[in-house]
Amino acid sequence: MRVKAVICYDGTGYSGFQIQKNALTIQEELEDALAQLTGREIRVLAAGRTDAGVHAEGQVIAFDTEWKHTLKDLKRGMNAVLPEQIAVRALERADVSFHPRFDAVRRYYRYTVYWAPVRNPLVARYSLHITRALDLEAMQIAAQHMVGRYDFWALGSPPQGNNAVRDVFRAGWSFDDPWLFFDIEANAFLYRMVRMTVGTILRVGYGALTTDAFEALLRHRDRAAAGPAVAAHGLCLKAVEYG
Amino acid sequence: MRVKAVICYDGTGYSGFQIQKNALTIQEELEDALAQLTGREIRVLAAGRTDAGVHAEGQVIAFDTEWKHTLKDLKRGMNAVLPEQIAVRALERADVSFHPRFDAVRRYYRYTVYWAPVRNPLVARYSLHITRALDLEAMQIAAQHMVGRYDFWALGSPPQGNNAVRDVFRAGWSFDDPWLFFDIEANAFLYRMVRMTVGTILRVGYGALTTDAFEALLRHRDRAAAGPAVAAHGLCLKAVEYG
Repeated sequence: MRVKAVICYDGTGYSGFQIQKNALTIQEELEDALAQLTGREIRVLAAGRTDAGVHAEGQVIAFDTEWKHTLKDLKRGMNAVLPEQIAVRALERADVSFHPRFDAVRRYYRYTVYWAPVRNPLVARYSLHITRALDLEAMQIAAQHMVGRYDFWALGSPPQGNNAVRDVFRAGWSFDDPWLFFDIEANAFLYRMVRMTVGTILRVGYGALTTDAFEALLRHRDRAAAGPAVAAHGLCLKAVEYG
Repeated sequence: MRVKAVICYDGTGYSGFQIQKNALTIQEELEDALAQLTGREIRVLAAGRTDAGVHAEGQVIAFDTEWKHTLKDLKRGMNAVLPEQIAVRALERADVSFHPRFDAVRRYYRYTVYWAPVRNPLVARYSLHITRALDLEAMQIAAQHMVGRYDFWALGSPPQGNNAVRDVFRAGWSFDDPWLFFDIEANAFLYRMVRMTVGTILRVGYGALTTDAFEALLRHRDRAAAGPAVAAHGLCLKAVEYG
């Protein structure tokens, strides 16, 4: 049977989701855990290939297994065997054709900024620390330019051979002193798109780029005028939705 | 001059505050930073000797220095030189007689419990995960038995030769699903007192100890009936107050 699971992880010590040689990845940990529980090699598919250091609260995975016990036992077993940086939050049987990446219709990422005069070690693992003055109003205007169906080439690379058109359903900043959250939802994202977007909009916030210039670089696919990407550790894949 | 500073740290990788041989401590990091900045060996005093793995948002320290620049520069310099797990939040000149431990009149600790069916890797560093059913009302009653001037021998060890009488000004649980916070303020604490208190009150919550039995073990200084202490990583020294 095919199983769908929602997983959560602290990406700090990992070289991203996708398995690779000579580097520790989330996928490898999941496949090791399943091998340990079932005695079989099981391939795990995921909704998003998060980069090194990126966290997830709602990554969705799928895998096939001949597991004979209850799904509750499978979930408990995985949580017992997985390292403490990774947890299975929910687990259910899925249609045999279910694919977590191809079937996803909406992905939600949050980027967290800690905006305070002094850095705070107790939040450093999950946020970017910024001390500079920021024009939040300009940043919000820039964020609004993201919403819609556009070619986002300026802000990230598409997978080989594909185009960079994406549907951004929602993008915006919220401020809860000393926190600044950038929330963005889209049908899919380009490689590094959220971190490039936040890095570019922060330049708007610093006054180094006007909102018009931001809109222009976006519409003209001008990657040279965008970025730089902000650090991975502020980013979290919050949720993935299916039709 | 004597300097008073409020510091914050993630205690995860440290063997507590107080300097010791063959173990990494917060005090050592602070003294190393000051030596690097001033070229002198400087001894750092602290309000509380937090245990291995315990965090702090409001630890208070003091030290003497012949620093010739501004205090703003000293603070900035320390934050630049200290590892990312430790930060100086505030820094000011103090009276030459100021002692962060002996002059403190009130200390505030918080213990954080993550009460949810599945563990969460994104909060595991700063909270204790509990899945079992809890009787919050009984736990709140037990907490109220802590408030007042009592001999707390049952819940911790006093420094050598001293008595175990402490003034607890406030103790109680608050619930903000899925979070459970135990907040306690006292003039001073015994060694491991907060972790022993939380561990014992959780047994009240599980139904393994009545509130009357909790009160009895407290009043009868019956340490054998108390504990066990909960894990260090859920504990944080939030603030220290002076007269």
